[in-house]
Amino acid sequence: MVLLGDMILLFLSHWHRNIHKCIVCIFPLQVCVYWWKEAIEMAHLLSTSCSIKLSSACKRYSKPLNQGLEAFPTSFTLQASKYPFRSLASQGQKPLRNYTVRATTLPISKEAPPQPSSGTHQTSNKPSKSQRVMVIGGDGYCGWATALHLSNRGYEVAIVDSLIRRLFDHQLGIDSLTPISSIQNRLRCWKSLTGKSIELYIGDICDFEFLSETFQSFEPDAVVHFGEQRSAPYSMIDRSRAVFTQNNNVIGTLNVLFAIKEFREQCHLVKLGTMGEYGTPNIDIEEGYITITHNGRTDTLPYPKQASSFYHLSKVHDSNNIAFTCKAWGIRATDLNQGVVYGVRTDETEMHEELCNRFDYDGVFGTALNRFCVQAAVGHPLTVYGKGGQTRGYLDIRDTVQCVELAIANPAQLGEFRVFNQFTEQFSVNELATLVTKVGEKLGLNVQTISVPNPRVEAEEHYYNAKHTKLVELGLEPHLLSDSLLDSLLNFTIKYKDRVDTKQIMPSVSWRKIGVKPRTITA
Amino acid sequence: MVLLGDMILLFLSHWHRNIHKCIVCIFPLQVCVYWWKEAIEMAHLLSTSCSIKLSSACKRYSKPLNQGLEAFPTSFTLQASKYPFRSLASQGQKPLRNYTVRATTLPISKEAPPQPSSGTHQTSNKPSKSQRVMVIGGDGYCGWATALHLSNRGYEVAIVDSLIRRLFDHQLGIDSLTPISSIQNRLRCWKSLTGKSIELYIGDICDFEFLSETFQSFEPDAVVHFGEQRSAPYSMIDRSRAVFTQNNNVIGTLNVLFAIKEFREQCHLVKLGTMGEYGTPNIDIEEGYITITHNGRTDTLPYPKQASSFYHLSKVHDSNNIAFTCKAWGIRATDLNQGVVYGVRTDETEMHEELCNRFDYDGVFGTALNRFCVQAAVGHPLTVYGKGGQTRGYLDIRDTVQCVELAIANPAQLGEFRVFNQFTEQFSVNELATLVTKVGEKLGLNVQTISVPNPRVEAEEHYYNAKHTKLVELGLEPHLLSDSLLDSLLNFTIKYKDRVDTKQIMPSVSWRKIGVKPRTITA
Repeated sequence: MVLLGDMILLFLSHWHRNIHKCIVCIFPLQVCVYWWKEAIEMAHLLSTSCSIKLSSACKRYSKPLNQGLEAFPTSFTLQASKYPFRSLASQGQKPLRNYTVRATTLPISKEAPPQPSSGTHQTSNKPSKSQRVMVIGGDGYCGWATALHLSNRGYEVAIVDSLIRRLFDHQLGIDSLTPISSIQNRLRCWKSLTGKSIELYIGDICDFEFLSETFQSFEPDAVVHFGEQRSAPYSMIDRSRAVFTQNNNVIGTLNVLFAIKEFREQCHLVKLGTMGEYGTPNIDIEEGYITITHNGRTDTLPYPKQASSFYHLSKVHDSNNIAFTCKAWGIRATDLNQGVVYGVRTDETEMHEELCNRFDYDGVFGTALNRFCVQAAVGHPLTVYGKGGQTRGYLDIRDTVQCVELAIANPAQLGEFRVFNQFTEQFSVNELATLVTKVGEKLGLNVQTISVPNPRVEAEEHYYNAKHTKLVELGLEPHLLSDSLLDSLLNFTIKYKDRVDTKQIMPSVSWRKIGVKPRTITA
Repeated sequence: MVLLGDMILLFLSHWHRNIHKCIVCIFPLQVCVYWWKEAIEMAHLLSTSCSIKLSSACKRYSKPLNQGLEAFPTSFTLQASKYPFRSLASQGQKPLRNYTVRATTLPISKEAPPQPSSGTHQTSNKPSKSQRVMVIGGDGYCGWATALHLSNRGYEVAIVDSLIRRLFDHQLGIDSLTPISSIQNRLRCWKSLTGKSIELYIGDICDFEFLSETFQSFEPDAVVHFGEQRSAPYSMIDRSRAVFTQNNNVIGTLNVLFAIKEFREQCHLVKLGTMGEYGTPNIDIEEGYITITHNGRTDTLPYPKQASSFYHLSKVHDSNNIAFTCKAWGIRATDLNQGVVYGVRTDETEMHEELCNRFDYDGVFGTALNRFCVQAAVGHPLTVYGKGGQTRGYLDIRDTVQCVELAIANPAQLGEFRVFNQFTEQFSVNELATLVTKVGEKLGLNVQTISVPNPRVEAEEHYYNAKHTKLVELGLEPHLLSDSLLDSLLNFTIKYKDRVDTKQIMPSVSWRKIGVKPRTITA
């Protein structure tokens, strides 16, 4: 249950785009469900009740509450849509098709006209402060850090998020290593600390009516799109999760493309892809395109993709769809093929514990290096899948936020589909295990490593050499993985080690055993 | 309205896989609808009532009706699912989630165990007669011709089709040049002519419960998958059609893959792709894969794709999804990248006019050569889009059915993702116009050609050289486009020219103007 509270302004928006406002105090909000075809498909994915509580300031925040609180309770647009929840409606009644919970806020100035600086190379030291950036998926791991970073750098930021990632935690019985606040409290805290407002639109981008409203309301100059189901194991749990992942990611992105075309043709789409789209070819991986000479003729073509999960495939589908719309409609887009992200602290999330980012270590959402640090912290052997020769690109989360800002500050041209490989270093799983072992021993930890049967279908020994120069050319200054950084990360996990549920560490999803029956994988 | 008649056995199947049988005589069947989120999205795509009438024999059929009619009324499995109709339910009632209309038939022997002849090269002269082939989309243009051909060649055939293609005709206000019978009358006629039964499952493969039942009931050794929205212009009408096309095609194919994995691991998937997946690269197009030497290293990778409509993109997504499941699960699959099909007659559809295939000439579903023949027949100028240098691969529909049989008779290995380019000749649009003009003049027609603004986004002058040797190596004997064939095709269109609605000929869908509002494009 997500607790908000006190008082809520519920703005119910119905069939049309105009938001009809009515103030309703609802607590708790019990949503009875009408079961429908897809409800069966998704029943195990979705919760059916929630309650909302809104507190009025950062907890344990040392700064006087009256600073920066001119308009408290901080307002935000909270729009609930039911598209991922599209199977649900009030039982026996006309469904609340698109209700909007809106507790609007310090109104954000819209006086500055959108001024995307097309094609102009800008360093991250000179953000275009008038730019309005919509961060879809802004409550997630990368999205939250990015939203705060952009806000801190002077961009006008709105977060669009359905919060379904939090629901996945409940349903899978997992949790972030770090305690994370509600998105509402996070934003309230950010406002009180910095005086900066971040607008919040809660809803699902697969619901085009909701997305239309957010576009027309916020008028973004750039959209950063993290709003997808982002776990490969999640997409391989069962058929319904596979279908959900592809439907959610592909249709959500299609809707974003249509919204840009319809409402904000100049808007720059910064889309999070993944290095996993490329697979592990036996030739160098280029950034999006490869020049091929074949039978005496030459062309530069999209780099061939070999994705290895329904999640990774959904990103390939997105890339292909986006590339087409750039060509057909003149959309400007940057596809950031991101590597594996590690770390948790950014300048902004460090400012207050209420701003702390999530940190996943479980077998479904946890990624290699973060999970190894947690394992070392609690004395669990580092779990190497198979031979451990799997090599991938990695980057610090501080570089994620830097890369996104660089992409926004230096937008693609109209009609351009630009691809950057977003990582800073390559490591094999065995190399990471060795690094964590070395640093762990310095901290007095007894770190063991075991090989576990690989739940995935992937090469465990392979050639890997991926280019990643374009973001460096734009000014990226990487935070490389050093002993001191690993030391810091390991100490961070040790701080929270009492929150670790060791049952969540081992892989629980098999690429080969995925079946058609809905599966409950809680420990 | 689809008219069937006499008596219908309605087998209502509910929440579980077991079909609970109850015999109900319903005529007409009025399906009231419950409007739900996606109903709004799809409202203009879907009809809300139908009635069913089943007649007992071929009309105007010269052969005595009592021949081959031992078990008349011919039985068939007719299962209605509502997945593309998933927004619809009985108003104010618990929805009929998965009702099955089943009028089962001459039971088809299931004694012969599945014997897919993995890896064995078989010519089309030696069909594996015990093989059971499910033709998804078997009521459509290519699917109908294929289902009859396979049945005639000794395969046990089942058609799986939601019949939504017929609904598109109603909604767009278009019609086949040829009058086509209901699928039920078609199958009844086929049975009476040949003594061969084709099972019929009416439902949507996006409804996994329905698809599961068809797999468990029919136990296919091969699945030929034509069951997708197959028009590029249709996918570019408006946002909801774009979303429908990608959702329907991608999720339907995912479901087929899961059904094979769950119920028929040995089953060979023969999937219809399109040559349009490749786009028009400036190098030779290979069959699915290309060997690339890059920076001193070499690998054979999936051929880069550059699709140019949401429809073509959906096929690229399918190809990527299928390739992954071949690798991860050991699925055996053949991806037939088909060119533009022309013609209408096959050996089987010629047997009786009740078996006549559909022939589309409208701006949405019509394809180049077929449309030119209709234009010549009615004295309408041949409409060349833009410069007319657009070059594509073409094939006679008699070669479509031959190619599919060759793929079935020579299945892919377990775990193999095999790609064939399925066409026989390349033509530019201008070359086709010239050919039709020449043959038309021989027939005394005054054939003019005009260039109309190209509604698509595509190169109008480009290099094009696509390989297509693999099916020839398996024994394909092409029907090349000769004057006599064109003469025959043109005479065919002249025969039906009074049925032509000239308002449907011009392109009505623009790649660049597609918007978010649902669009009615009837003339």
